[in-house]
Amino acid sequence: MAKYEGVSLSVVRRLPRYHRFLEDLLKAGVHRISSRELSSKMGLTASQIRQDLNCFGGFGQQGYGYNVPALHAEIGKILGLDQGLRAILVGAGNLGRAIATHMAFETKGFTLSAIFDSSPQVAGESVRGLTVLHTDEMERYCRAYHPDVAILCIPKEAAQQLAEKLVSWGVKAFWNFSHYDIAIEHQGIIVENVHLGDSLMTLCYRINNTVDGEK
Amino acid sequence: MAKYEGVSLSVVRRLPRYHRFLEDLLKAGVHRISSRELSSKMGLTASQIRQDLNCFGGFGQQGYGYNVPALHAEIGKILGLDQGLRAILVGAGNLGRAIATHMAFETKGFTLSAIFDSSPQVAGESVRGLTVLHTDEMERYCRAYHPDVAILCIPKEAAQQLAEKLVSWGVKAFWNFSHYDIAIEHQGIIVENVHLGDSLMTLCYRINNTVDGEK
Repeated sequence: MAKYEGVSLSVVRRLPRYHRFLEDLLKAGVHRISSRELSSKMGLTASQIRQDLNCFGGFGQQGYGYNVPALHAEIGKILGLDQGLRAILVGAGNLGRAIATHMAFETKGFTLSAIFDSSPQVAGESVRGLTVLHTDEMERYCRAYHPDVAILCIPKEAAQQLAEKLVSWGVKAFWNFSHYDIAIEHQGIIVENVHLGDSLMTLCYRINNTVDGEK
Repeated sequence: MAKYEGVSLSVVRRLPRYHRFLEDLLKAGVHRISSRELSSKMGLTASQIRQDLNCFGGFGQQGYGYNVPALHAEIGKILGLDQGLRAILVGAGNLGRAIATHMAFETKGFTLSAIFDSSPQVAGESVRGLTVLHTDEMERYCRAYHPDVAILCIPKEAAQQLAEKLVSWGVKAFWNFSHYDIAIEHQGIIVENVHLGDSLMTLCYRINNTVDGEK
């Protein structure tokens, strides 16, 4: 597959939004959209969209606008949604179960292939059609199946210990819901954090004060 | 309370992390920390931390470092965690229940005061000690109790309709887990988005490609 290098993270973070908006347009039967219309729908400027897409080659045609199905497919390819990365989920508590059952992993580039929990009571239960395995089996599993990503839905202390082990077993990326900042102690590991508490505190500040700049 | 104006959102977004790290230090019994130590723990430069804190008046003392309990308390005040904002949660499905039961709302500035669901089967159930109310009761509730925030754990289409109503009933802020981008159609409303699907797709890209810049 084509590899993109050096595109900035802020551009990359907008790609899923483009993909999401284009998917909505597709579902609504829209096959062509002007850059002005797309930008007003997305709350961006037309030139911002052009600049973003130019990082990957550019897809607009002067006076034609964007071809919705083609651009949707292209952005999906850029994101690598067709690569079938394998994810394991660690921690089948409230949050872990919700993530496992709520997320459409397949449409976001991933297959959820195993779920682990440290509680012997939880191991053996079925979540999203998968039998929850005990964390004792994780090393064997990782060495045998080389999952690309570990989704951490466990408390901070457990995350700190487990991240270290998972890295030593070859896991190179994390979708991290714990409050442990993995990336600081593990250079070269890819971490996408979802710090829900941080998000809630940010909201608290924004309600109490005026903030400069938008999302 | 003191109001801060015009601090940039990127600085604001780092405040909860400071609060989190300082809380860990407090729990570990650390009462004083040099700016160098704090910065290495957080993966930031000392000058970045100084600059961030200077937006709110600055708290370091030359040659002394930071007083951990004082800085922790001060950042909590800046965030407004002591203001007791009232939140309602809409959508008691998998994700909504997990959010309701998993989050320590009180330590993040909020009280969760009501949970709503559109399903008559779900209304009446107990989640986090609250009886789930039917969404038909939401207008009466909002007009009577003026919640500060609505947490949306509902599908996009429902979010689009409900956000409009909630705004008309006086709700001015959203913690948004739906895929509907509220802020685009409702100017002046404060929205903190948790787009889990976008986060997962960003991770997919980052595994497949090299990205410039961190976090």
